[in-house]
Amino acid sequence: MTFDIQHNDPNSKARAGVLQTDHGQIETPIFMPVGTAGSVKAVHQRELKDDIHAQIILGNTYHLYLRPGLDIIEKAGGLHKFNGWDKPILTDSGGYQVYSLAGTGRKIKEEGVTFKSHVDGSKHFFSPEGVMDIQRTIGADIIMAFDECTPYPCEYGYARESMEMTHRWLKRCCEHFDRTEPKYGYSQTLFPIVQGSVYKDLRVKSAEVIASFEREGNAIGGLSVGEPAEMMYEMTEMVTDILPKDKPRYLMGVGTPANILESIALGIDMFDCVMPTRNARNGMLFTTEGTINMRNEKWKDDFSPIDSGINCYASNFYTKAYLRHLLKADEMLGAMIASVHNLSFYLWLVGQAREQIIAGTFKTWKDAMVVKLMQRL
Amino acid sequence: MTFDIQHNDPNSKARAGVLQTDHGQIETPIFMPVGTAGSVKAVHQRELKDDIHAQIILGNTYHLYLRPGLDIIEKAGGLHKFNGWDKPILTDSGGYQVYSLAGTGRKIKEEGVTFKSHVDGSKHFFSPEGVMDIQRTIGADIIMAFDECTPYPCEYGYARESMEMTHRWLKRCCEHFDRTEPKYGYSQTLFPIVQGSVYKDLRVKSAEVIASFEREGNAIGGLSVGEPAEMMYEMTEMVTDILPKDKPRYLMGVGTPANILESIALGIDMFDCVMPTRNARNGMLFTTEGTINMRNEKWKDDFSPIDSGINCYASNFYTKAYLRHLLKADEMLGAMIASVHNLSFYLWLVGQAREQIIAGTFKTWKDAMVVKLMQRL
Ligand SMILES: [Zn+2]
Ligand SMILES: [Zn+2]
Repeated sequence: MTFDIQHNDPNSKARAGVLQTDHGQIETPIFMPVGTAGSVKAVHQRELKDDIHAQIILGNTYHLYLRPGLDIIEKAGGLHKFNGWDKPILTDSGGYQVYSLAGTGRKIKEEGVTFKSHVDGSKHFFSPEGVMDIQRTIGADIIMAFDECTPYPCEYGYARESMEMTHRWLKRCCEHFDRTEPKYGYSQTLFPIVQGSVYKDLRVKSAEVIASFEREGNAIGGLSVGEPAEMMYEMTEMVTDILPKDKPRYLMGVGTPANILESIALGIDMFDCVMPTRNARNGMLFTTEGTINMRNEKWKDDFSPIDSGINCYASNFYTKAYLRHLLKADEMLGAMIASVHNLSFYLWLVGQAREQIIAGTFKTWKDAMVVKLMQRL
Repeated sequence: MTFDIQHNDPNSKARAGVLQTDHGQIETPIFMPVGTAGSVKAVHQRELKDDIHAQIILGNTYHLYLRPGLDIIEKAGGLHKFNGWDKPILTDSGGYQVYSLAGTGRKIKEEGVTFKSHVDGSKHFFSPEGVMDIQRTIGADIIMAFDECTPYPCEYGYARESMEMTHRWLKRCCEHFDRTEPKYGYSQTLFPIVQGSVYKDLRVKSAEVIASFEREGNAIGGLSVGEPAEMMYEMTEMVTDILPKDKPRYLMGVGTPANILESIALGIDMFDCVMPTRNARNGMLFTTEGTINMRNEKWKDDFSPIDSGINCYASNFYTKAYLRHLLKADEMLGAMIASVHNLSFYLWLVGQAREQIIAGTFKTWKDAMVVKLMQRL
């Protein structure tokens, strides 16, 4: 994997770059649609490529490990072959999902985590080494380190100990990753993850440790878990000031359109979030004019396109009134249209950000755009 | 509306024709995907047109009347404008749905039917005249008469009285339809419906009465409601022998691929059924090689395309193993792929039938095909 920065914004820490993988290139800043179980919910692969213009998608290790299972994915020749997505894929480490199973017999120890499947209750064990093997087998282009993602709020003592374990686990991840080979003939790379909750000294410490591993890219985890947005931006900026400038930075699980623009201004290059697809299924739409609760009465006879501000079949062809009807009547097509639209909007947004960075006009554009995007229509 | 028969099969009663409407032409025999609430479940309008090659879709009067309601549809300029489907639309009369509400306070009288909405329990009244107005407002190209669809089994006395009321209702439908005008500038036509349950004398009587109204097309209702297939074919053949040869014949709610081929051989030109979409959501696929229960273990590592026998994105691009995974994991994409495939298959099937009729080879092809399609893979 290579990463080249093409432009640095003169008035913020934003940058525009190109990330090169064996499955093609990714123009940054980029948003990665979440394909939990090997499918971006309610969206066809063709739509992801041609309508949404996704350049990389995310897969969830926990879900894929349980279903369809590694034997099937390996027999298929990796996830790209299994689901027909031939552009880059990033997999999370499964940690986030496993931790959210708290109270179902999940146990975190130095060696790893024991948990029960939400599908059939069967017992499983994830270790840093095991999770590297699993992601190798899934065949992700970018593999995430096995970390503990602390909840918010989180006591200082717990946050520090957890962070230290995450660092020890990272060492095990790297050692295991570096002595194993990719399974399908294309290269894979490992991103470590900065933790430290909302404590400045822990975030600084973690960023320094993570940087010292000198991997090809770095991630920031444990944010966007309920803390105020200002706190998230503060932590993000402290960390991006420490992480190497010449490597991609991935802010995990973020976020709203405004969150994304603000974080790009702080030097973030990659994002993922379930919000565009999850909100779509609930009728919450992100548009170029602001957010819309499409189930509201006020849209019932609005026969204008969902959003003519972006170039996307679903956004341009279907009307607000029709989409409202589908959502109210629980027709699957409602979730399908809203999902394609929201993802198209997210990809449009990061594409616009990139153009503005290259043009040197990012800061002014971003400040105006954030205000616009936070409006409720 | 005009209907021209291009070819009559020398070895059966099958015919190939062209039905011309103000929304374009329909090549018969044809299958009409069911778009209950103005949406063919789990399918985009673009897919209906470009992948499935649907030429006409069906809308359900009962559902559309309740949601979004006639005011919204009229404000949109009719259903075509509301849902963006600019090819022909046929609406049922709402009768079938209303009758299936038995036991919820539904009352059938000579004047019409009182029923409660399944959405909010509100009380409504459908009369032959009212249902003509409703379908005029929805803006269907082909409007169905308000009839009573008897269940199976049905006692002779009830079947006869019900049929006679259906005939009296038809007179009211025609009179009201003929003294009202289309609302949106394109012409609409009314199809009457033959009833009579599984009683030969009633079916003959009903077919004669229906033919005597001399409408532009005729339908056969009250079949495929649980009776044996042989009985359905027997009734269909008796009726097609009486209905005018030069007008399209529509067999309502039919059926399996084999049902459709056998009924084409008996002189049927139009079909609709929820089976391809409903079965798709349950993982039952119709393919050129036979039917598949895609949830079965045996497909878990079958990485061949769903069906390479037809030319359709969903059928060719996705594998059986991937589709099985999606269905098992309850991913919406599973229902989406299966729905596009099953409908593509149905449209492919009637298209093949048409080609065989034109080539004069329909009978032999049909006999072999029925055997093949009834196989379980
Ligand atoms: Zn998120
Ligand atoms: Zn049916």
